[in-house]
Amino acid sequence: MDAALALAARGLGRVWPNPAVGCVIVRDGRVIGRGRTADGGRPHAEVVALGQAGAAARGATAYVTLEPCSHHGQTPPCADTLIAAGVARVVVAMRDPDIRVDGTGLSRLRAAGIAVTAGVREAAGRELQQGFLTRVAAGRPMVTLKLACTLDGRIATAAGESRWITGPEARAHVHAQRARHDAVMVGAGTARQDDPRLTVRGFGPAHAAGPQPVRVVLSRKLDLPRDGALFDGGPPVWLVHADAPPATVDAFAAKGAETVRVGTAPGGGLDITAALAALGGAGLTRVYCEGGGTLAAEMLSAGLVDRLDCYTAGAAIGAEGRPALAALGLARLADAPRLRLVETRAIGGDVLHRWRA
Amino acid sequence: MDAALALAARGLGRVWPNPAVGCVIVRDGRVIGRGRTADGGRPHAEVVALGQAGAAARGATAYVTLEPCSHHGQTPPCADTLIAAGVARVVVAMRDPDIRVDGTGLSRLRAAGIAVTAGVREAAGRELQQGFLTRVAAGRPMVTLKLACTLDGRIATAAGESRWITGPEARAHVHAQRARHDAVMVGAGTARQDDPRLTVRGFGPAHAAGPQPVRVVLSRKLDLPRDGALFDGGPPVWLVHADAPPATVDAFAAKGAETVRVGTAPGGGLDITAALAALGGAGLTRVYCEGGGTLAAEMLSAGLVDRLDCYTAGAAIGAEGRPALAALGLARLADAPRLRLVETRAIGGDVLHRWRA
Repeated sequence: MDAALALAARGLGRVWPNPAVGCVIVRDGRVIGRGRTADGGRPHAEVVALGQAGAAARGATAYVTLEPCSHHGQTPPCADTLIAAGVARVVVAMRDPDIRVDGTGLSRLRAAGIAVTAGVREAAGRELQQGFLTRVAAGRPMVTLKLACTLDGRIATAAGESRWITGPEARAHVHAQRARHDAVMVGAGTARQDDPRLTVRGFGPAHAAGPQPVRVVLSRKLDLPRDGALFDGGPPVWLVHADAPPATVDAFAAKGAETVRVGTAPGGGLDITAALAALGGAGLTRVYCEGGGTLAAEMLSAGLVDRLDCYTAGAAIGAEGRPALAALGLARLADAPRLRLVETRAIGGDVLHRWRA
Repeated sequence: MDAALALAARGLGRVWPNPAVGCVIVRDGRVIGRGRTADGGRPHAEVVALGQAGAAARGATAYVTLEPCSHHGQTPPCADTLIAAGVARVVVAMRDPDIRVDGTGLSRLRAAGIAVTAGVREAAGRELQQGFLTRVAAGRPMVTLKLACTLDGRIATAAGESRWITGPEARAHVHAQRARHDAVMVGAGTARQDDPRLTVRGFGPAHAAGPQPVRVVLSRKLDLPRDGALFDGGPPVWLVHADAPPATVDAFAAKGAETVRVGTAPGGGLDITAALAALGGAGLTRVYCEGGGTLAAEMLSAGLVDRLDCYTAGAAIGAEGRPALAALGLARLADAPRLRLVETRAIGGDVLHRWRA
């Protein structure tokens, strides 16, 4: 199962809207087939692994990180494919909570006389499926909020200078995290000030040929530079707005961007809960939010941050610098958003600390 | 030598103005004497260890973390005591740069026919002596700056609520760090707002009976509450000011506080470089600075921070909260104070990251 989980992880950020699944087929103590959900979501892991195993799959055991699907979509259900291949036993890490599956994959296997074991390495399986599970349960993608700041929580000088606060190792680590998410998201201020590309870079041509995350900007009025680095003809750009003028929407569409309109929040800004729901509706399961401070504060306040990765540099900018988080409007310390520590370690000369909601 | 270094470390914060030294005496592969500089600085480690060894010291090897002293102070030089005890060999971690010693301890031993080896575990020895070495070289104590803040670098809400941002484990760790320093220091704002005691607590009556760090407040005008928790008759309180009115100085003296007057800086505030020099002149070797944000920023700007311990809690307060560091007045990011990462680890639910200048 650990091998199947490792295979599955390689699909993170590349298989949405499908879950990243891994499958290993073993017979007589030897691995005869390995597969993961392919880039774009098809073929499924089981189909890839069974294809490698061929006729040897008869009587074998299949280790799958998620319950095999039981519904006819664009491909036949994987449960049927496993039955047809004649496997003797199926071991899964977790059931698929998708209402189209939700145990029916396992019961179909059992009905065909296949021995089924569920819940093996379930915690690791759930961890891997957090994006898929959040979309199924809450209708929105899982969100990882990234902060990269000084010891005193600043992301730029008062003049806006931010390159570079963290070192090259931390920046490379950020690119690796982008690659494991379906989309990279920033607010309008960051898009204007930093003119970011939001692509995965630094992993050589092999990765460059693979799927890149969608680039998402939230901007109420789409008051963004139209000649920005985002509109370079690279990976897809999705612009989420609330009340941008039609001419502005058309202009960005002409640049190749998708535009998504959502409502405004009671306070008057773009409704970010609706924005996240729209992203989930469009199929995204894992979103990497890189700020800036205004969007990061809104996301935290709205309870939309599932994971927080903070890179802290050994530098200080002082109180006149730009804060990593804008105002949260807390009345009492007891109202402060609190997160649970997952991990801390050095990345080059910086510290990475990871937190969970 | 490792045993001697561990013994020496137990004296940190308890032996100023003397260095914290450890000594282990070994004969025929057996430890026959162990000692560290006693609380208050006397007797020296060698005297304690030789006292344990007695006549068995003849022909033995003494491991000492710092070159034995060679000058007559309130006690005879330790080099002479080692010679008189008849030890055959002395191994030291590092030479004592104090101009009254500076190699003369070792040469005196060699002249008496004792085999001398210097530089064993020297890096660890220097680490332990950083306070003593800073005082010898720069005339001021080593400074550890402590920050305890949220993920976004805040130490209190806008209303000043700060209890508690970090958890009980981190707070206990802070008390352990206080115990390893000669003094705990805060600025006037923290003394006014938090009314801190600045004592070492939570280690039971044994520690309570030992030396407590001096409590230092830097305050230009001594505009501090005279009924504060500091004036509780506990450990010594030193108030460093620049131009407090004589009546104010007298009032705090009547409360049992020492007052130290230094000049003002060109900007008009208390000259903190002069303040640190005064603390060094008074014998302090290790100062633990607990902020607040104004003093922390001044210390960093003045290049007076040797170590920085940052406790980061998994909480967010937002931009209206009080910053861990006040303004630094940086024109460019390249001017930002930069520190080198030493260590990062979890302390309870918080992260401790330690940095060096």
